[in-house]
Amino acid sequence: MPPNVESCTIASMSDVWECYRLELAAVEDQIRQNLGSKVALVNTVAAHILNSGGKRIRPLLLILCARLAGKGDRFEICPPGADVLLASLIEYIHTATLLHDDVVDHAEFRRGRRTAGGLWGNQVAILVGDYLYSKAICHIVGFRNQDVNECLSEACRKMAEGELMQLSYKDDASISEREYLKIVEYKTGSLIAAACRIGAVVADADLALRDALFQFGQAIGVAFQVADDTLDYSAPLESLGKSRGKDLGEGNVTLPLLHLRKHCTEAERARLAEVMEKKPNGNGELAWVVSLMERYGSIDYAMATARGFVQAAKVHLDLFEESVHKRALQAVAEYMVSRDH
Amino acid sequence: MPPNVESCTIASMSDVWECYRLELAAVEDQIRQNLGSKVALVNTVAAHILNSGGKRIRPLLLILCARLAGKGDRFEICPPGADVLLASLIEYIHTATLLHDDVVDHAEFRRGRRTAGGLWGNQVAILVGDYLYSKAICHIVGFRNQDVNECLSEACRKMAEGELMQLSYKDDASISEREYLKIVEYKTGSLIAAACRIGAVVADADLALRDALFQFGQAIGVAFQVADDTLDYSAPLESLGKSRGKDLGEGNVTLPLLHLRKHCTEAERARLAEVMEKKPNGNGELAWVVSLMERYGSIDYAMATARGFVQAAKVHLDLFEESVHKRALQAVAEYMVSRDH
Repeated sequence: MPPNVESCTIASMSDVWECYRLELAAVEDQIRQNLGSKVALVNTVAAHILNSGGKRIRPLLLILCARLAGKGDRFEICPPGADVLLASLIEYIHTATLLHDDVVDHAEFRRGRRTAGGLWGNQVAILVGDYLYSKAICHIVGFRNQDVNECLSEACRKMAEGELMQLSYKDDASISEREYLKIVEYKTGSLIAAACRIGAVVADADLALRDALFQFGQAIGVAFQVADDTLDYSAPLESLGKSRGKDLGEGNVTLPLLHLRKHCTEAERARLAEVMEKKPNGNGELAWVVSLMERYGSIDYAMATARGFVQAAKVHLDLFEESVHKRALQAVAEYMVSRDH
Repeated sequence: MPPNVESCTIASMSDVWECYRLELAAVEDQIRQNLGSKVALVNTVAAHILNSGGKRIRPLLLILCARLAGKGDRFEICPPGADVLLASLIEYIHTATLLHDDVVDHAEFRRGRRTAGGLWGNQVAILVGDYLYSKAICHIVGFRNQDVNECLSEACRKMAEGELMQLSYKDDASISEREYLKIVEYKTGSLIAAACRIGAVVADADLALRDALFQFGQAIGVAFQVADDTLDYSAPLESLGKSRGKDLGEGNVTLPLLHLRKHCTEAERARLAEVMEKKPNGNGELAWVVSLMERYGSIDYAMATARGFVQAAKVHLDLFEESVHKRALQAVAEYMVSRDH
């Protein structure tokens, strides 16, 4: 830890990036070092996706949680470097899921760059995903830490199950808010929760602190996904590398649409069902849905829900004394529901 | 273990199926019990592929190796039932790879039944593969056995790397026999080797016996794949649920083709290159390639290589005294290169 971290002032996310830049640089180095397959294709494809501009939120959270949960002056990572190595492995797992998600979603672009499937074919994307995932598991079991093993394998199972739940609810407008939130918790909350918990594990924190950081991570993960689902309707057209209205076109029923369906008129609900059936939808249909959402407050409702999860997440930090690391985690939590996440 | 196993006479594979039918039935039960996702789609798809007529060779090998490596009268599985549970989990991992392989190969049928991708779409096939794999890892780490963790995660990494090696050598006739055998060892030998080793682990056998059974499994795995690759050219048209000439059509250079390229004339090699380029190939081209292979002894050479690996595998059993389990493993080894595997 560079000596200046403790004296950092954290007002916003940009201070977090700046303050922990050395730790994040170490994670980048580790991500590169892990690769080294003898198969050139693996390294090329993995490097493409690993360097595609991800924010490394999960590695950052692991490192912050380790510092927060660590025992002050006697702060020690066990074994030394475990935080950086595990942070890089969680990014591998996250990257593996992105590779498979892009194949599942027939995505051509991610963050403005062509996807691995688009460049090398879906075969390569599927298999490099499998490789990154199994490579990560190999490293992880090398730690011989049961909490780490269980926490990460559980997260992987939940991510796959969450994606499958989403798939089985496709085009099904009868999904409840509870079911929607379960999907979000599984597919997005689980790995972020695992990253936070593992930070506490490598800092040798006690069970109560591990659980608190797991809950914190799960809540900000849900907040992130709910905000992301809302931005799919409300983001300005020119922002991000993403297109808007993706969920509507794919038949994924997310929180703003759930809210709208519940509050609109019978006639509007019937027309909505028609729009959902006829996909991919054009801009006209999207604009109509968005205008309805604005009228009924669906976007405000969904963003308020996301912010509610951020507030709930912060409560789990009450167990910890004030510190620069705690302020950094609070800033990350806020960032999860900001427009530029 | 049913009391009659020790008094079985093993002359061929059908005796093995008969003699160990109770153990295999227990594995089937376990495979069904493991499922139980709350997502109906997961259970439906997983049941479809898990019940698609696989021979359960890997579970059988685990169980046989546990009995062979176990300490005679004091034979004990630790923890009780670990052999059956781990056998079922290895079948899960194998099934996950089949799901992804079928997507990668654009396969419509497997063993005469439609593939999961064909029935439910590639999205479902990819995600159920991910689910089965991560579900297996969750159960596996629950054993808290480092040898089991390392052995299986290593096998998974090698399988993915082997598939990617094969992909990067596609259409590349310059691949060497050594490189071909490395691919085969990784993509097929590694999980079979892991199944055999884990049998020894749950029987609490010492390291030398674990290693011997790992080597045995790896060699019969390679034998199996080399024989399978050869049958792709030499099997009678009406046999199996598979079509012939798949590898030629997909640009996979396997042992018979390698041998042929090395021994045919310059002109034949040039024509071969043309045939390989122009895929998918028709029956006329396949018949021409097969007739060349017969003339140059390429099919005999490849089958002899497969049988050589069976012989090498059996040598690793020399460490063990004669027993019904040893005879059963020898029968399985022979079966790996038989036409109806």
